[in-house]
Amino acid sequence: MSTRRELRLNTFQMSTPTHNWAGMWRHPDDRGTEYNQLDYWTSMAQLAERGLLDAIFIADVFGVYDVYGGSADAALRSGAQAPCLDPSIAISAMAHATRHVGFGVTANLTYEHPFQFARRYSTLDHFTRGRVGWNIVTGYLKSGASGMGLNDIRSHDIRYDAADDFMQAVYKLWEASWEDGAVVRDRASGIFTHPDKVHVIKHDGPYYQVNARHLSEPSPQRTPVLYQAGTSQRGIAFAAQHAECVFINGTSKGSVARSVKTLREQAVRYGRKPDDIAAFLGCNVVVAASRGEAQDLLEDYRRYLDVQGQLSLVAGWTGIDFADIALDDAVQFVKSNAVQSTVEHLTINAPRPFTVREVADFGVPGARAPFILGTPSEVADELISWVDETGIDGFNLVRIVSPGSLQRFVDMVVPELQSRGAFKTQYREGTLREKLFGDGPLLNARHPGGALRGSLRG
Amino acid sequence: MSTRRELRLNTFQMSTPTHNWAGMWRHPDDRGTEYNQLDYWTSMAQLAERGLLDAIFIADVFGVYDVYGGSADAALRSGAQAPCLDPSIAISAMAHATRHVGFGVTANLTYEHPFQFARRYSTLDHFTRGRVGWNIVTGYLKSGASGMGLNDIRSHDIRYDAADDFMQAVYKLWEASWEDGAVVRDRASGIFTHPDKVHVIKHDGPYYQVNARHLSEPSPQRTPVLYQAGTSQRGIAFAAQHAECVFINGTSKGSVARSVKTLREQAVRYGRKPDDIAAFLGCNVVVAASRGEAQDLLEDYRRYLDVQGQLSLVAGWTGIDFADIALDDAVQFVKSNAVQSTVEHLTINAPRPFTVREVADFGVPGARAPFILGTPSEVADELISWVDETGIDGFNLVRIVSPGSLQRFVDMVVPELQSRGAFKTQYREGTLREKLFGDGPLLNARHPGGALRGSLRG
Repeated sequence: MSTRRELRLNTFQMSTPTHNWAGMWRHPDDRGTEYNQLDYWTSMAQLAERGLLDAIFIADVFGVYDVYGGSADAALRSGAQAPCLDPSIAISAMAHATRHVGFGVTANLTYEHPFQFARRYSTLDHFTRGRVGWNIVTGYLKSGASGMGLNDIRSHDIRYDAADDFMQAVYKLWEASWEDGAVVRDRASGIFTHPDKVHVIKHDGPYYQVNARHLSEPSPQRTPVLYQAGTSQRGIAFAAQHAECVFINGTSKGSVARSVKTLREQAVRYGRKPDDIAAFLGCNVVVAASRGEAQDLLEDYRRYLDVQGQLSLVAGWTGIDFADIALDDAVQFVKSNAVQSTVEHLTINAPRPFTVREVADFGVPGARAPFILGTPSEVADELISWVDETGIDGFNLVRIVSPGSLQRFVDMVVPELQSRGAFKTQYREGTLREKLFGDGPLLNARHPGGALRGSLRG
Repeated sequence: MSTRRELRLNTFQMSTPTHNWAGMWRHPDDRGTEYNQLDYWTSMAQLAERGLLDAIFIADVFGVYDVYGGSADAALRSGAQAPCLDPSIAISAMAHATRHVGFGVTANLTYEHPFQFARRYSTLDHFTRGRVGWNIVTGYLKSGASGMGLNDIRSHDIRYDAADDFMQAVYKLWEASWEDGAVVRDRASGIFTHPDKVHVIKHDGPYYQVNARHLSEPSPQRTPVLYQAGTSQRGIAFAAQHAECVFINGTSKGSVARSVKTLREQAVRYGRKPDDIAAFLGCNVVVAASRGEAQDLLEDYRRYLDVQGQLSLVAGWTGIDFADIALDDAVQFVKSNAVQSTVEHLTINAPRPFTVREVADFGVPGARAPFILGTPSEVADELISWVDETGIDGFNLVRIVSPGSLQRFVDMVVPELQSRGAFKTQYREGTLREKLFGDGPLLNARHPGGALRGSLRG
C-alpha cells in the first residue's frame, strides 16, 4: 500500500495535566502530573525527535471550563485542561534539547497586540533556528474574557474580522519592516544594521494600530509557520487565506475528504496552490503487539477516564451542560456559539443520538477524531488509508497517556510506516517550513504575508 | 577587610547586540552578534553559575532609541539596544542548562494585562523551579507607545498609579486565587485540585479589571522575586512598597548611601524591615593581572566604542538630542520626562559640565554607574568598600564585552572575594528568594503581596 505523499505527524500536547482525555494523569504510563516540570517537555521533545515527528503541537486554552454544572468544579477536580500554563515558555528548553523537531505554539490573538506579539514569535523563531509555528486561535471561553476584564467574548464573526486585521499588522511587521540585507553585522565598518533598510510600519486597521519598526531583525522564517483550525464557514475562509497547516476534525472519511477538498478549493480562489496547505487530522491511536492486547490496553485506559471531567470538556466545546442529564439519556447536539466545528462534526457524523455516557467515552462514534486500534501493521494500514482516501497530509496524534501513547507510536508504528515508504527515515535540513513543504524558509509570494515582503523597499 | 553582609552579584544582560556600551559587539571578546542564538544564552548562564552569581538580569526596552538626531539611525547602525528580542523566551533553555542561578526578567506592565501576564510569570517560575524574578518597568520610550498604536506614553505619575493597580491585581492572582493545599494530585481519589480551594479573583481597579481564577496552580515562589529601579520620588515610594531587589545608579558613595538609606526608611514606613530590600548598584569592572594591563584593556575597549551609538542611548535616557552639539562643547543636564533617575544622577553627581565627547565615553564622572579598574585585589577592595560605605547589598555587573567581561570577573574577582569571605563558595539550596534572603520561598507577610495570601480562604 502506498501513499500519495510523505505522511506528516505531530504530537498534540498541552501544558496541563490532561488534554483531550480527562483523568488520564492517574495512569501509570502518564506523567501528566509533571506538566509543570521542564524535564517533562525536554524528554518528550527528544522522544518526538527520535520518532522523526514533524512537530510538537502545544494547544492552549485561556480560561477554565465552567459550562458543566455551571461551575469549574469538575474541570478543576479532574485536572481537565486546568491548571494550564503558558505554552510559549518551554519552547527554548525543548529547542536546546533537540535539533530538528518543530514547535507549534498556540496563541489567542484576541488578547494580544500585534506589535508585542510579533516580537515574541520572532524571538521564538530566532531561538529555535526557524522551527516555530503559530496556531492562530481567537478563543471561545467566556471565562477567558472575564479574566481580561471583559463582559463576554466577541461574536464569532467579529473575532474573525479582528483576526484578519491582526494578521495584516503582523505580516507588515514580520515581512516588510526589515528588508533582506538590512542587517550586516559588519565589524570593519561598524555597521550592524543599515537604517535605510528598516521601515516604520503604519497600520491603521479597524481593530489594531501600529506605528513603529518591528523590534526584531528578520528571523529564519520571518513569519512562523501558520497553523489554524477553523472549520466554520468563516473559519475555512480564514484558513484558506492564511493557514499553511490546518487541523481538521471528523471521524468519517467522507466528511474529512469534503473538508479537505473545500479548503484546497478555497485556497485556490485566494490565489494559492492546493498543496500550499497541509491538512492534519486529529487521531487517537492505541497500538500493541496483537489486536487483543490493544483492546486490553484500551480497557485499561478506560478505567482511568474521569466521566465528569470529560463531560466538562465536551460541555465547554459544545456549550451543552450535561450535568442534569442522566448518563444513559440520549442527547441531541445543536450548533452553539462555542467551538462550532465540534458541534458540526458531532452533528454531521452522528449515526444516531448519543447517550451522555458515550459522550464521555473513548472513541464515541461521531466524536472529533478517529480512534485507531490494533497492531502496528493494522494501525499503519488505517493511517495510510485515511491519507489516500481523504487527501489529508497527516495526523495530530492525540495524547491519551503522555508520554506512553507517543512512546508506543514511535517504537511500533513509525518503523512500520517507514518500512512501507510512507514516512521519512531522516529529517530534511532547514527550517520547519522547509521540512514541511520542501520550500522556504520564507512564505511564498502567493501567501498574503509573503506578498508583503519587500513592499516598503525605497 | 570584611563586609557587613554576603555580597550579591548579578550579570546585567539584554537580548540585543550591545547593552550599555554601544559598538562593543565589534570587540574580539564579544559575542553580541550572537544575541539571537540560544547558545549565547545557555553558555553565559553556565558561566554565571560557575561564578556563583545570584542572577542573570535581562533588561529590555520596548522601542528604538530615536531622540538623537530625531531618528533611529544611530541606534540601528551601531546596534545600540536595537534590534531587541523578548527577554522571557530564552529563560527555560538557560534554566535547563543550570541548577541554581536566578533569572531577572524585565517586563513593561504598561502593555500587559494582569491576567495574562500572571500566567506567563507563573509558568516561568514553575519551569525554573522558583528561580525567576520580575523587573517591573513602566516604559519611557515614545516609540514603544507608538508601536502599540498610542499617541504617547502615559505621564510619569500616571504610569506609577497604573503600576500600583497592576500589582494589586497580580498579587491577588498569584497569592489569593489558589490556596495552599488546593492541588493534591491524588491518584487514589482522582482529585487533582480541590475546587473549593480555588477562588475567583474580582479586581475592579481604575486601570485593570479581572474576574477569574488564576490559570496556574501556585508556583514555587508564587510571586516572582520583584525587582525595581525607580529612583524618582514616586519611584522610590513604589519600590519601598513592592520591590525586594532595587537597582540603584550613581557614582558617588555619598549619593548612593543616601538613596539606600531613603529607600530602607520608606520601606519601614510601609511596615517592612530595612533588610527586606536588597540594593544593587550598577557597576562596570575592568580587571587584569596588573593595573597597567587593566588600563591597556580599557584603552582597547575604548577603540570599539561607537560615539554616535552611545549618544543615541544617552539621548534616549535623558531626552537631550546631542546631534547638533559639537563633541567638545559642554552640556548641561536638566530633568526630563524620560528616565528621570538618569538625569538626576547626572545632575547630582556632576562635579562640572560634561563635554559631549565625555558623555559618550566610558566612566565619565557623573555617569550612571561607577567604573572600577584594577587588579583582582584592587577591584575586590573597591567593591567591598562600596558595600561597607553605602549599605548596598551588591552589584549589577554591566556588560562591557560579553561574555568577556563576565568571564574575567568570574575567573579573577570571584576567587578574590571568596578568599576574603565576602562572597559565597556555594549556592544555598532553594528558590531565588531563599537564596537571596535566607527566607521564603514565598513573600513574607510584611509585603503587600504576601499579606494577601490566603485572604480568600472560605
